[in-house]
Amino acid sequence: MGRSWPGMYNAIGMAKRKRVAFQGERGAFSEEAAVKLVGGDVVFDPRPRFEEVFKTLAGGQVDYAVVPIENTLAGSVHENYDHLLRYKLPIVAEARVRIVHNLIARPGVKFSEIRRAFSHPVALGQCLRFFEKHPRIKSESYYDTAGSVKMIMEEAPDGVAAIASEAAARFYGGHILKRSIEDDRQNFTRFFLLIRRAGARSGPAPRGKNLKTSLVFTTPNTPGALFRCLSVFALRDINLTKIESRPLRGKPWEYLFYVDLLGSVRDAPIRNALRHLGELTDLLQVLGCYPQGD
Amino acid sequence: MGRSWPGMYNAIGMAKRKRVAFQGERGAFSEEAAVKLVGGDVVFDPRPRFEEVFKTLAGGQVDYAVVPIENTLAGSVHENYDHLLRYKLPIVAEARVRIVHNLIARPGVKFSEIRRAFSHPVALGQCLRFFEKHPRIKSESYYDTAGSVKMIMEEAPDGVAAIASEAAARFYGGHILKRSIEDDRQNFTRFFLLIRRAGARSGPAPRGKNLKTSLVFTTPNTPGALFRCLSVFALRDINLTKIESRPLRGKPWEYLFYVDLLGSVRDAPIRNALRHLGELTDLLQVLGCYPQGD
Repeated sequence: MGRSWPGMYNAIGMAKRKRVAFQGERGAFSEEAAVKLVGGDVVFDPRPRFEEVFKTLAGGQVDYAVVPIENTLAGSVHENYDHLLRYKLPIVAEARVRIVHNLIARPGVKFSEIRRAFSHPVALGQCLRFFEKHPRIKSESYYDTAGSVKMIMEEAPDGVAAIASEAAARFYGGHILKRSIEDDRQNFTRFFLLIRRAGARSGPAPRGKNLKTSLVFTTPNTPGALFRCLSVFALRDINLTKIESRPLRGKPWEYLFYVDLLGSVRDAPIRNALRHLGELTDLLQVLGCYPQGD
Repeated sequence: MGRSWPGMYNAIGMAKRKRVAFQGERGAFSEEAAVKLVGGDVVFDPRPRFEEVFKTLAGGQVDYAVVPIENTLAGSVHENYDHLLRYKLPIVAEARVRIVHNLIARPGVKFSEIRRAFSHPVALGQCLRFFEKHPRIKSESYYDTAGSVKMIMEEAPDGVAAIASEAAARFYGGHILKRSIEDDRQNFTRFFLLIRRAGARSGPAPRGKNLKTSLVFTTPNTPGALFRCLSVFALRDINLTKIESRPLRGKPWEYLFYVDLLGSVRDAPIRNALRHLGELTDLLQVLGCYPQGD
């Protein structure tokens, strides 16, 4: 969607710099997602914890929040589903970002000089083949990927590099020595763009094609409950693109379900399916309706 | 199940120490799960990567492997589902381990002396309230939770502690200064115990009550495909305890499904349901049939 998202311009048509909260340091993968979702001409507001990202948006200190919701290797970020349910901040867009790890050093430093590479242990663990191929380079853990670039740029020890995103290299002025050193190129994270709730509505329902709707529901603890819930979609030829069960805290054998489906809450079949689903569920919440991301 | 797992004793009834592979350092949460699953009288074989854990078991260097499959906050470990599909090592038991983080120091060191606490950034991020409450203690990232205990015991810097499991404190001889300093006590990881495949079978199917079966299947890309697949269980009153979709790599709009159900592949309704499911799916693999864990 780039910079065309409604609200990027104020009432008199002047560009107004919106504020976007995300978790992590400047240059984090969430910042890459934010640029993809709302463009780069915004004020970034990095926060240490996911919950603060939600609080900041709920409290009106920022216009948008960008949060990861699932990763192709590591699964769904349940914590953020919990915050979506609690804060009721509607999803208005999604984006998929490929997690590309780059070896980054200060400008002027040569690859042959590198002896140590700092990054978050999860990122280091995704670049094991690089370290096997270059045994002279020792992996060293750091609290954050982008933070490791900041550290090597500020402290400038000899023979040292960081492993992080291209956005982190750009932000801190690092030079990319080797691009895409991760073992698995099928490492994608899906992010949601959230806005503050406008009045009593659960979010603006966009018009048009290629829309997606995300919802959460809980079923009573009876055999076949999920099957009956899915019938409301199957009977109306509504396509699902995600389903996931999650045990409910403190309630053995009761489950929360995450479902994504193709279509908008403005479509009559989906409206009917949701009304029908409401009869079968204890809790039903539409998390948002938004254009399908690429 | 403790130490009663069949195969813990050799042909003449003498206790024989089995070998168990897991990912991480000695004292990792996977080791806690292994002790719960096969008892402590085994030889532990820690490996740096999940894939090596599977290879080690497939190659016969160990008798068991213990791997995490899902966490209540962080979701399913898709990488290990991939390895289960590829290596076809049957699941024979499951266990749930609560992730408890403890502040650990060398014996004799007092809590009031601690100024820095080392651990994996994910563990540090789960103890933020502890650091807010004790601002004199600085959090420092390290590549591994258990490894941080090893480091403080060996290098013994002043005023330093580690954050890790009780098993890590025990193994490296550390002293627990504060127990259970994690923010969220609802942090559980579910682990699988795997054995090598005996002959052509997909694993030993246990008899008895309270059994669970885990399977993976893919559906053709047609509307309502999942609904039809779930009907094979609903029509036979078979209860599911997990369902999760995962997009298939390189095949947009095609999905892999993870399903856990209550019952054994020896039960006639489940045998029939699986035969029926085979008609509706492109791929269907039983990952194992095992007693329900606590």
